[in-house]
Amino acid sequence: MAAFDIDDIVQSLQTVRQQWREVQKRSLEPGGRELPAREALANIVETLKGVLFPMRLGPHDLRQESENFYVGHALDSALHGLFAQAQLELQYRDRHLSRDDENIATRAGVAVRAFAARLPEIRTLLDSDVLAAYHGDPAAGSVDEVLLCYPGVLAMIHHRLAHELYKLDLRLLARIVAELAHGETGIDIHPGARIGKGFFIDHGTGVVIGETTIIGDHVRVYQAVTLGAKRFPSNAEGHLEKGLARHPIVEDEVVIYAGATILGRVTLGRGAVIGGNVWLTHDVAPGANVTQAISRNEGVQLRVAATVS
Amino acid sequence: MAAFDIDDIVQSLQTVRQQWREVQKRSLEPGGRELPAREALANIVETLKGVLFPMRLGPHDLRQESENFYVGHALDSALHGLFAQAQLELQYRDRHLSRDDENIATRAGVAVRAFAARLPEIRTLLDSDVLAAYHGDPAAGSVDEVLLCYPGVLAMIHHRLAHELYKLDLRLLARIVAELAHGETGIDIHPGARIGKGFFIDHGTGVVIGETTIIGDHVRVYQAVTLGAKRFPSNAEGHLEKGLARHPIVEDEVVIYAGATILGRVTLGRGAVIGGNVWLTHDVAPGANVTQAISRNEGVQLRVAATVS
Amino acid sequence: MAAFDIDDIVQSLQTVRQQWREVQKRSLEPGGRELPAREALANIVETLKGVLFPMRLGPHDLRQESENFYVGHALDSALHGLFAQAQLELQYRDRHLSRDDENIATRAGVAVRAFAARLPEIRTLLDSDVLAAYHGDPAAGSVDEVLLCYPGVLAMIHHRLAHELYKLDLRLLARIVAELAHGETGIDIHPGARIGKGFFIDHGTGVVIGETTIIGDHVRVYQAVTLGAKRFPSNAEGHLEKGLARHPIVEDEVVIYAGATILGRVTLGRGAVIGGNVWLTHDVAPGANVTQAISRNEGVQLRVAATVS
Amino acid sequence: MAAFDIDDIVQSLQTVRQQWREVQKRSLEPGGRELPAREALANIVETLKGVLFPMRLGPHDLRQESENFYVGHALDSALHGLFAQAQLELQYRDRHLSRDDENIATRAGVAVRAFAARLPEIRTLLDSDVLAAYHGDPAAGSVDEVLLCYPGVLAMIHHRLAHELYKLDLRLLARIVAELAHGETGIDIHPGARIGKGFFIDHGTGVVIGETTIIGDHVRVYQAVTLGAKRFPSNAEGHLEKGLARHPIVEDEVVIYAGATILGRVTLGRGAVIGGNVWLTHDVAPGANVTQAISRNEGVQLRVAATVS
Amino acid sequence: MAAFDIDDIVQSLQTVRQQWREVQKRSLEPGGRELPAREALANIVETLKGVLFPMRLGPHDLRQESENFYVGHALDSALHGLFAQAQLELQYRDRHLSRDDENIATRAGVAVRAFAARLPEIRTLLDSDVLAAYHGDPAAGSVDEVLLCYPGVLAMIHHRLAHELYKLDLRLLARIVAELAHGETGIDIHPGARIGKGFFIDHGTGVVIGETTIIGDHVRVYQAVTLGAKRFPSNAEGHLEKGLARHPIVEDEVVIYAGATILGRVTLGRGAVIGGNVWLTHDVAPGANVTQAISRNEGVQLRVAATVS
Amino acid sequence: MAAFDIDDIVQSLQTVRQQWREVQKRSLEPGGRELPAREALANIVETLKGVLFPMRLGPHDLRQESENFYVGHALDSALHGLFAQAQLELQYRDRHLSRDDENIATRAGVAVRAFAARLPEIRTLLDSDVLAAYHGDPAAGSVDEVLLCYPGVLAMIHHRLAHELYKLDLRLLARIVAELAHGETGIDIHPGARIGKGFFIDHGTGVVIGETTIIGDHVRVYQAVTLGAKRFPSNAEGHLEKGLARHPIVEDEVVIYAGATILGRVTLGRGAVIGGNVWLTHDVAPGANVTQAISRNEGVQLRVAATVS
Repeated sequence: MAAFDIDDIVQSLQTVRQQWREVQKRSLEPGGRELPAREALANIVETLKGVLFPMRLGPHDLRQESENFYVGHALDSALHGLFAQAQLELQYRDRHLSRDDENIATRAGVAVRAFAARLPEIRTLLDSDVLAAYHGDPAAGSVDEVLLCYPGVLAMIHHRLAHELYKLDLRLLARIVAELAHGETGIDIHPGARIGKGFFIDHGTGVVIGETTIIGDHVRVYQAVTLGAKRFPSNAEGHLEKGLARHPIVEDEVVIYAGATILGRVTLGRGAVIGGNVWLTHDVAPGANVTQAISRNEGVQLRVAATVS
Repeated sequence: MAAFDIDDIVQSLQTVRQQWREVQKRSLEPGGRELPAREALANIVETLKGVLFPMRLGPHDLRQESENFYVGHALDSALHGLFAQAQLELQYRDRHLSRDDENIATRAGVAVRAFAARLPEIRTLLDSDVLAAYHGDPAAGSVDEVLLCYPGVLAMIHHRLAHELYKLDLRLLARIVAELAHGETGIDIHPGARIGKGFFIDHGTGVVIGETTIIGDHVRVYQAVTLGAKRFPSNAEGHLEKGLARHPIVEDEVVIYAGATILGRVTLGRGAVIGGNVWLTHDVAPGANVTQAISRNEGVQLRVAATVS
Repeated sequence: MAAFDIDDIVQSLQTVRQQWREVQKRSLEPGGRELPAREALANIVETLKGVLFPMRLGPHDLRQESENFYVGHALDSALHGLFAQAQLELQYRDRHLSRDDENIATRAGVAVRAFAARLPEIRTLLDSDVLAAYHGDPAAGSVDEVLLCYPGVLAMIHHRLAHELYKLDLRLLARIVAELAHGETGIDIHPGARIGKGFFIDHGTGVVIGETTIIGDHVRVYQAVTLGAKRFPSNAEGHLEKGLARHPIVEDEVVIYAGATILGRVTLGRGAVIGGNVWLTHDVAPGANVTQAISRNEGVQLRVAATVS
Repeated sequence: MAAFDIDDIVQSLQTVRQQWREVQKRSLEPGGRELPAREALANIVETLKGVLFPMRLGPHDLRQESENFYVGHALDSALHGLFAQAQLELQYRDRHLSRDDENIATRAGVAVRAFAARLPEIRTLLDSDVLAAYHGDPAAGSVDEVLLCYPGVLAMIHHRLAHELYKLDLRLLARIVAELAHGETGIDIHPGARIGKGFFIDHGTGVVIGETTIIGDHVRVYQAVTLGAKRFPSNAEGHLEKGLARHPIVEDEVVIYAGATILGRVTLGRGAVIGGNVWLTHDVAPGANVTQAISRNEGVQLRVAATVS
Repeated sequence: MAAFDIDDIVQSLQTVRQQWREVQKRSLEPGGRELPAREALANIVETLKGVLFPMRLGPHDLRQESENFYVGHALDSALHGLFAQAQLELQYRDRHLSRDDENIATRAGVAVRAFAARLPEIRTLLDSDVLAAYHGDPAAGSVDEVLLCYPGVLAMIHHRLAHELYKLDLRLLARIVAELAHGETGIDIHPGARIGKGFFIDHGTGVVIGETTIIGDHVRVYQAVTLGAKRFPSNAEGHLEKGLARHPIVEDEVVIYAGATILGRVTLGRGAVIGGNVWLTHDVAPGANVTQAISRNEGVQLRVAATVS
Repeated sequence: MAAFDIDDIVQSLQTVRQQWREVQKRSLEPGGRELPAREALANIVETLKGVLFPMRLGPHDLRQESENFYVGHALDSALHGLFAQAQLELQYRDRHLSRDDENIATRAGVAVRAFAARLPEIRTLLDSDVLAAYHGDPAAGSVDEVLLCYPGVLAMIHHRLAHELYKLDLRLLARIVAELAHGETGIDIHPGARIGKGFFIDHGTGVVIGETTIIGDHVRVYQAVTLGAKRFPSNAEGHLEKGLARHPIVEDEVVIYAGATILGRVTLGRGAVIGGNVWLTHDVAPGANVTQAISRNEGVQLRVAATVS
């Protein structure tokens, strides 16, 4: 068989890479990769799942009487892995933003230490999520089935870890951890979202929860629920404003059924129930029960003026 | 680099684990893991896929004239793997519910033997699903493309295996098998659902089919269709009633387009067509053609009374 | 433990396999597998991701000054892998359709060469997609975060490769490449869809884009958007007509919000904005802003006549 | 290509297997494998190497301050793995010899516990072996080079573990552990051999040390040294007598140069030096220096009478 | 860090490769690898070990009642793997020697079929080797220990397979199979050697058995025994004569102790015993007992004339 | 089953580790591993084998027309891997010997660059070794069989790489590379040995070649040949003198048959032939033919005086 024209294509690909790098003002200096690695984060999260739930998500031959040895070793390994990735993120970010000179390793160490200190609290929160799923789903056979099987619980393990990274300003690591769960479960929770205890996502595929969302305790949501932004304001130069509070506030004990879409910085009051497929862009009073019909009528008025502009 | 405070975190994690175990009334005795393992089930299902479709999902170097050797060996391996997992589930369940003293191994053996006897019928059903997909999708190039590529077919392979496990009361194994497909395809079929032959799920992401759903022959559904429960009644002590028939009955040759939501123990009569995004909580007559407009009008009446309670 | 009745089940499984093969008019001759392999395609795509973005999706120890060596070697390996798979597809297809006698290897070689020549252009298109995501999402921290994390970008890498295979009439390979992304991201783009530069899919889970869809430049879509077909006409013999233009045309700079469903060969004019959950089966004028309320009113008129037939 | 006659060969192979089983009086009942597994032992030894030398043979990312966690977890895992293999050996042996009824698990547990208690002493002995190698070889750069690189040290790690198993009457496990080292190093030490501290084998390929050998402290041997048996007496029925003391006793501080062969229950007195290629079948006085010439002369007399019988 | 001068070294390496290819008269045409692969042969032999001894060297979860399925499937896989490697060897050889035009695939098929037909006989021979080891070693605990642990048995499994390949003129494959065992055991048996039943190699490291050696039944050899050639005659052009009978004939029931060296086409008569370290270049009568002293005296006379030439 | 006393053993192991560290004056500070890793070196050598012989020891799907891409990429990867290991060795050594302050990375870079520059010459030397084996063994079928199969060639690939590392004072890396080959082949060549072109080791098991050995061109040795030291002088403090020339010099075209032992700084003159099992501790004239008888006579005189001291 005749050969393929490898040389030509290699040249052309180099040309388009260089165009990209010039436009992006990237260094053309020799040097290695400087980005955190998805595979490394996947390993770290997998290890941390064993650290948090050793007898259920740890190694199969573990025994209760030796848990602490495993937990200690796995934790040590995960934290040092995270430390390396945190340094990569900090270096990468500095290259772009040329921040202060503070030592990268010191900053990464501080962040990882703070992250580690949060793990017991994360386990407690996840226990409350497991119980919420067990009590909220008539098909759930046991708390252990919930931990082993429910995608909503898997998504929350990732989220509660990712959220700590986000708070420690390791946003790229946080995002990678979140997207690993998104890929496995179809549940897309931005690591910035603040979520109280006892949170239960049933079925989960298609759920989207935005960056500035705030969710209280004992909230329950079903598949394809969106807690999103209504619009993205731009600043004077025409760039999107970043960091504005633009997603809903969901108070304690709210239930949101499948396919409901809540957009913008609205508040769903404590104990409100949002029906399936409801489309909501305004506040809901505590205890209110909103179904499609009602929301549509109100919604039409708000939106008619803006249509066919 | 200074070390992380591994000892402290290990201690704190032990404390929260003990709290959980006390609340959950778990044994603190020495002992190993007693739960079935997701990875083991994944291997078993992968092997059974080769058993069912040796020349298409079996090993690449297989030849037709030697199929039976492969099928026999793989079947033997898969059944003994399943036997081990079945024993784990039965032991686990007994720990909680303290059932009768009947021998675990005997019960697991009976179940696996019954499961195995169903495999030829499962293959026949899956053949009908493959044909349904081939005939139902104008983009399908061949029956083999359908088997290799279509997530709906993958979900049905898992489901038809999981459903047998469910009927044999191996519900945790069944659930794990179902969730493996859910993770890969975004299609969430509870193993309890009863589904006739020639079932076709197109695209599939976001489909949810509940535990007590009954689906006839030659039914077709599209992405994001929900066959769900309307509400979960609680018993006198305030716990959810488990096992009630609470999901739809879908008769033969019904078609349900994308995004439709059917909730509660309603019946969609033979040959009915449910339009995209329709929200349905009542019966539909055989042959009826329900679109969004109609369903909304009727739906409003039913639901208005219940809103803003 | 007593043995399972392996022999009996092996016999029964053979019987059902033979029934299938007879019905499908398959050869019962000795011989090996003749289908392309999902795992092989997964490896090829993984390698091509490194070829296209060596410093970000290539091996971790790569250095910029040696990129071309890696790119050349990986490209060579990927193309020869693809060449083998292409031959399998062509052989498989000929078995069914008994096409002309032209040499399989020659045809496969021509196709792979044409595919390879498109790679630089594909990289350029993907760069435009990355920029679109970066500019379109206020949560995006950098162009590299977008490339590493965003499922919409992963789906587009697969799609732009799959689309070339589709155009070269390697439709089974194209479909496998597309489904690999569907499984990972929940985004289901048929390889036949024609998509312009700067395409951004946010969140993505549940997006479905049909085979004959045509999308212009700088289009943005959100999760659960469907660009689908309204109906599938059958021909005189009652079989589905294949290959008809049956999906939407989306002109430049259109935005389609989450959950919107656009069905049939309609045209969304340049710069139109389609609101969340909108259900559309008719054309939209350039610059129009369609929200649920408006589309419903119009939609009702179109569809009422057809309901409850 | 035509198929191979698989069925015929399978039948013929079954026939010869049955002949073997009948001659060996093996059960033809259904049932699984009952032998310890080489791969399992290889994993256990690999883990124990990390337990004994965590910072040098343990995981690469280990840190000194977290050693104990790793050691505890790895030890737990290795001991339970060993416990399973010990049960297999005990079951296997009972099948043949029909020993007393004592519980297999109890006996295995006692043995593994005794084995574990010896590990600190084994580490101390191995430290003395490492030092002996460092001091005995002018080419050795450091004690760590010795531990990482020297096949003689690797052989001694295996031997000191295997010898404990041998003493606990787990002779099959002991043999497997010994043969793993033999395969890697060419050094064949029977697990029954008793070896004092500070033993150094240089180069090592071809060394053979027999079952009833006794070696004192600070002994040094070079490649291709044999400490073997002269003859194997048979008992009244013509079977080899097993367990007789038939290999040399080597007292403290003896040096045996390359290729020397010492056969039979002879004693090499303290501090003796045996020259290269020497062939010895008689005792050597303490402090003696035996070279080829001397040994030959004496050897001839002993052996002449027995030649050309 | 500065980059390494990859480009320069790549150029220099290309230059030396081209020099080699020119000297060796190799094609510089585009094209792939044409040599059999060591890894492929290693897999094939590993599979054949399971085919020959399914319950001891096959998969751990195998059960006696399902052996034939495994044997059939593994055999099929191994034979087709071997078929591919045989084609590679035949193609490779033709490139050099430009043989007749006979179809490569046909010739490979014939060879593999003949090889397969020999497997039951090979198993029978290996059973006799296992028994010989069990009866010949006082340290052997059981026939299964012998099969699992003894390097001499492993070497014979490889040899008996390799010898069939050699007889079928697949000499490169045969050599690779032999060297795989050499690497693992230190036992170097040329695949051409003809070896009778019940052959036992104890310890084994350093054993060398040459191409034209002929060994009878029930022969026993120990470590470091050489059955070699005395000299290699050259032909008129000064090249080594290939294929001449140049290694010893060892008749039934001979025993050769460790380190003995037998060189040239000499015959060791039935039942002869050759002592350790003996150096022999002449025939030995049946039943003779040769020790070092005797052989030396005779040896001196034979060799003195030839020394210091 | 009752638990093992993990805690106690962990404590005891810690105690013996601390004793070792105190005696060895090791730091007890927190910190990670600082030693080069055997597995890393194994990967690097494996890659370099592909770099040196791409079409024979490189990846199976390589094609001649794309060799340079592979060679460049693999070389880059191997050199950077080596660079990391070289830094580890330099850091490790400094910890012990507290050398000058020169930058570790700079020194490692210089060494790796020098190593890389030697690769083309190493390939040329290895080509000469391959030819020597092909011409020296009547059983060799082709030069490619020699490269694929002969353990002597494998040992020389390792040695020629290790020797460069040794010359660059990376002695621990060199030793690891050498021991990797020793483990696989039973051939133990110290990386310090200087070996000319066209060196052929036949069979090889048991060959030992010491650190200060010097070997000319076109030398041939057989299995179990030792080129060793006669004695190791100690210095005033009783420590072994390191680095003294203590191994033989072997001039061009010498042949040394199996089992011969040459000890001390003696010279074997050009073209000398040393017979099998010869024991030599004195010079041999060029062209001399030394057999056992002769060497023994001379040897006796030299050694008698020293025996039975």
